[in-house]
Amino acid sequence: MTLPQEFHEIAERVNNWGRWGAEDETGTLNLVTDEVVRGAVAEVRTGRRVPLALPLTHDGVQTGVIPGRVDPLHAMTQINQELFGPGTVACSDDMVTLGLQAGTHWDALPHVSHGGRLYNGRPASTVTAHGGAEFSGIHRVPPVVSRGVLLDVAGALGAERLPGGHAVTPEDLERAEEFGGVRVRAGDIVLVRTGQMRVYLGGDRHGYGHPSPGLSIRTPEWFHARDVAAVAGDTLTFEIFPPEIDGLWLPVHALHLVEMGMLQGQNWNLEELSTACGESGRHAFLLSATPEPFAGATGSPVAPVAVL
Amino acid sequence: MTLPQEFHEIAERVNNWGRWGAEDETGTLNLVTDEVVRGAVAEVRTGRRVPLALPLTHDGVQTGVIPGRVDPLHAMTQINQELFGPGTVACSDDMVTLGLQAGTHWDALPHVSHGGRLYNGRPASTVTAHGGAEFSGIHRVPPVVSRGVLLDVAGALGAERLPGGHAVTPEDLERAEEFGGVRVRAGDIVLVRTGQMRVYLGGDRHGYGHPSPGLSIRTPEWFHARDVAAVAGDTLTFEIFPPEIDGLWLPVHALHLVEMGMLQGQNWNLEELSTACGESGRHAFLLSATPEPFAGATGSPVAPVAVL
Amino acid sequence: MTLPQEFHEIAERVNNWGRWGAEDETGTLNLVTDEVVRGAVAEVRTGRRVPLALPLTHDGVQTGVIPGRVDPLHAMTQINQELFGPGTVACSDDMVTLGLQAGTHWDALPHVSHGGRLYNGRPASTVTAHGGAEFSGIHRVPPVVSRGVLLDVAGALGAERLPGGHAVTPEDLERAEEFGGVRVRAGDIVLVRTGQMRVYLGGDRHGYGHPSPGLSIRTPEWFHARDVAAVAGDTLTFEIFPPEIDGLWLPVHALHLVEMGMLQGQNWNLEELSTACGESGRHAFLLSATPEPFAGATGSPVAPVAVL
Amino acid sequence: MTLPQEFHEIAERVNNWGRWGAEDETGTLNLVTDEVVRGAVAEVRTGRRVPLALPLTHDGVQTGVIPGRVDPLHAMTQINQELFGPGTVACSDDMVTLGLQAGTHWDALPHVSHGGRLYNGRPASTVTAHGGAEFSGIHRVPPVVSRGVLLDVAGALGAERLPGGHAVTPEDLERAEEFGGVRVRAGDIVLVRTGQMRVYLGGDRHGYGHPSPGLSIRTPEWFHARDVAAVAGDTLTFEIFPPEIDGLWLPVHALHLVEMGMLQGQNWNLEELSTACGESGRHAFLLSATPEPFAGATGSPVAPVAVL
Repeated sequence: MTLPQEFHEIAERVNNWGRWGAEDETGTLNLVTDEVVRGAVAEVRTGRRVPLALPLTHDGVQTGVIPGRVDPLHAMTQINQELFGPGTVACSDDMVTLGLQAGTHWDALPHVSHGGRLYNGRPASTVTAHGGAEFSGIHRVPPVVSRGVLLDVAGALGAERLPGGHAVTPEDLERAEEFGGVRVRAGDIVLVRTGQMRVYLGGDRHGYGHPSPGLSIRTPEWFHARDVAAVAGDTLTFEIFPPEIDGLWLPVHALHLVEMGMLQGQNWNLEELSTACGESGRHAFLLSATPEPFAGATGSPVAPVAVL
Repeated sequence: MTLPQEFHEIAERVNNWGRWGAEDETGTLNLVTDEVVRGAVAEVRTGRRVPLALPLTHDGVQTGVIPGRVDPLHAMTQINQELFGPGTVACSDDMVTLGLQAGTHWDALPHVSHGGRLYNGRPASTVTAHGGAEFSGIHRVPPVVSRGVLLDVAGALGAERLPGGHAVTPEDLERAEEFGGVRVRAGDIVLVRTGQMRVYLGGDRHGYGHPSPGLSIRTPEWFHARDVAAVAGDTLTFEIFPPEIDGLWLPVHALHLVEMGMLQGQNWNLEELSTACGESGRHAFLLSATPEPFAGATGSPVAPVAVL
Repeated sequence: MTLPQEFHEIAERVNNWGRWGAEDETGTLNLVTDEVVRGAVAEVRTGRRVPLALPLTHDGVQTGVIPGRVDPLHAMTQINQELFGPGTVACSDDMVTLGLQAGTHWDALPHVSHGGRLYNGRPASTVTAHGGAEFSGIHRVPPVVSRGVLLDVAGALGAERLPGGHAVTPEDLERAEEFGGVRVRAGDIVLVRTGQMRVYLGGDRHGYGHPSPGLSIRTPEWFHARDVAAVAGDTLTFEIFPPEIDGLWLPVHALHLVEMGMLQGQNWNLEELSTACGESGRHAFLLSATPEPFAGATGSPVAPVAVL
Repeated sequence: MTLPQEFHEIAERVNNWGRWGAEDETGTLNLVTDEVVRGAVAEVRTGRRVPLALPLTHDGVQTGVIPGRVDPLHAMTQINQELFGPGTVACSDDMVTLGLQAGTHWDALPHVSHGGRLYNGRPASTVTAHGGAEFSGIHRVPPVVSRGVLLDVAGALGAERLPGGHAVTPEDLERAEEFGGVRVRAGDIVLVRTGQMRVYLGGDRHGYGHPSPGLSIRTPEWFHARDVAAVAGDTLTFEIFPPEIDGLWLPVHALHLVEMGMLQGQNWNLEELSTACGESGRHAFLLSATPEPFAGATGSPVAPVAVL
């Protein structure tokens, strides 16, 4: 079994291999130039900061369906321990075990491969248990600070949230641009809101994951045409799930991560941001969302902040 | 044994309990107002982004001296796994176990107690194995975006790095202000560079930890007077170690975290930033350094970014 | 709120504090003398070995109801890694994170306290995040090899499994002795079969945990009278759950672990053993069930083996 | 580069592939028949039980040299937590993260491969991050109870411990048989004592690991000739390290695990056992050493017990 012809045709059109050199490990984040950052900073009006991460708890969005992807397990290794003797200053320390793709996170480029290849044509075999990803691991990601744009598709369509079967199309994205009075440009980080996070926030972890609205296989070309630097969303699966084309699983992952070399983010909480943008009437802002540099990792939790 | 009188006198002068209400869990980060953030944004000139985190590796700064504080242990749970059948898009997933105070991190306020008390007078017993810190856990920290100021003490004193026994004094901090042509103001996040990180970067993990230059017990009053929002440094212990006053261990931790309610950061890599500020002649910038919101945790890794 | 009078009366009758000295950390395992072991060995007839542990998998008996008690999470740190160069012998290594009470396990004596006390009157405060249990940690448990006796209560009552609300009484235990043609004696390790494990083995993890048959608050006196060394069972909660007396949670835990100083085991798979004992007509055997000596731990997985 | 001819010649002579059928995952443990177990039980004289495991502590035998093989990290998830309300019975729970080959352990057969093959000719590629070892994982190991024989090579040679460069030969093993007045027979589990454990117990973790005495490449043929069921030792590397033949790393691992399908154990503490056998004048005993059944794992901690 191989991926269908339709996939390969899109893949060819959005492919960025070699665009920033044969040695590149950074992909579309190359589009975030100093100039782009200055433009991002220029979007700040009030100084209001909106956090976009879910709390990292053992009761997070994972339900055990994806083997090994565990919500954070937190434990104390010291509690008010007077390390230097009775009556001295006391310390509490803790540790955590977590799946790196469990909560609000970025997928690193080597999180996905197809046909034995990673971004920029690297062999998939360069991901090993011994050291993780040799190329484009999350620790190779430069600071993620750029202009953020909220494409509030749910808002634009007048829905509290999109239904499970809704594939977000380029037309939806453009409707959201219009709704937000903003136009996506090169180097932007696009946040696509479906409203699906409300299901999780309402207490239904299973319903949150599946079925889920999400990006259509047609959107990578749109992001490619706009030279977007990264995309994040408010669902578990990022793209529509189950998929649009029977038997073609995770095509958007493969197009973004492998073909385009574009970071993608999942489980971002865009609810407060949606309200804030609605109040201010402005859907562009300064976004700061640098992952933790776990060496060789294929993903990382992130605590993104929008500064409006 | 109890803490000496000298400690208690300083504690009384810098104490912020009740300053932002009896229910406050945020401490000096209350000083980061929207206006402060607008001022921070106004510092950006070029758009250059400088990362301040060390890679999170099993070969990090911990040496086993602090029980339970382990460098990240990374392992793969999926490698190019064709989850949906042969020939489909393949996924790699990973997990990590780490001490939350192991690498480049923020200490949350309940990381330290003295006399059975945490910030704002909460009982130390509110930190438990069951859920961690009930108050002021790292997940309660709001977005950390403010003006950052590099106080390059090593640079100001013309040293590659300060010697192990050097306690950084308020006079040193003011010399660094002068050196950087900047004045610390309310809401700023101050980064104090001793150059000690060079020892670790040079391959000597044990020498990095101990003996270490670091903040003097006299500095909290200076930070308090300036209404600083948070302080981070480039050493393992943050304050001078071994301590200035025989038998008085970790007094700066206790003053910052418990009395003032001020986040403090350790193991920040300020080397590239020092060079960048030297080149631009400007030691103030936009700093983005939001911790990961581990529920109930007394600290978190952070991937800070300075935007110049 | 305190524990009811009924509990305290039983506690007084079964209390073993001081019985083996004020310094004792071993409790009823002191009853396993060399002579008892020789008697245990003398029970072996065929040499057939029956394993009693469930596999340690991420899909184990835990359902997330007990915070922090996680089924094992396994991950590879090396896969066929040619550590010494291409073409050399290749190694695979792995790691695991698990709750020590998650699968087939022994509870160590300090797993439970009541009224601020542990076994032998130690203060409960001797269990800390820094080092775990100072006294009677699982690493202090001597080799657990003794005569095992299967009390097949389900078998004796002609049931495939006892219903959820069935509290196993001393009368039930004696009926099982009669059924098995065996009499429990000093130093024995008693395995009580309810058949509840069939619910888990049948695929119903939630139904397995709750409601559950299990030991009645009346059984500790019986175990005490017989000078049993340890007791294990085939349920998640060991004792009947929800409890017999409204509001009196985990009384059998408190009586066994705190008052008697007796190890107790949960989630033991007694199905194959039940069949084997039925076939041989003998319900006594050599039992080997030494926990892993995790320093300071309040429990440990165990892979018990019955030799018939 | 490939393994030298000498290795392949030995491999051919000791190979057990197909001996117990093409589907076999158990290897030489097939040699432990019911009759062997009855013979093992018959060795018990006094009932004395000797534990052979080191405590599982964060300060164990690992030094960080082997990536990912971490000593156990223990943390509390509950401490005297009154889960059902104030004044109720209180519980303490804990969790642990550890490398499965970190302490006293068994290597499972798929721990090593060479030439792309595992025991019984299975492809090495059947070990994956997704589920670990598909064949012969440690959870497939049947109960390990058999006759144990201590071959006290250090004792036989009149040494407190063998020097680092000492390769234990078949002649050494036979001298130890003579010293112990015992002859190894089919189905036995052989424990080879070098005395190297004294280095670790004396506080020198680094010296313990390297250089180390251990089994010579000539011993697998001897074990094969005697139809030994398993072999364990008191060193980190099991076989002599650095190796006897320049550039031929871990040949004994490959011969035992891949060619013979024989479990091997490391870091067993044989000091008390050596004394006990010396006192009793008997070097054969009942050995119980069943690993924890971690699903898909390539090794497991074990708490072995010798019953004399």
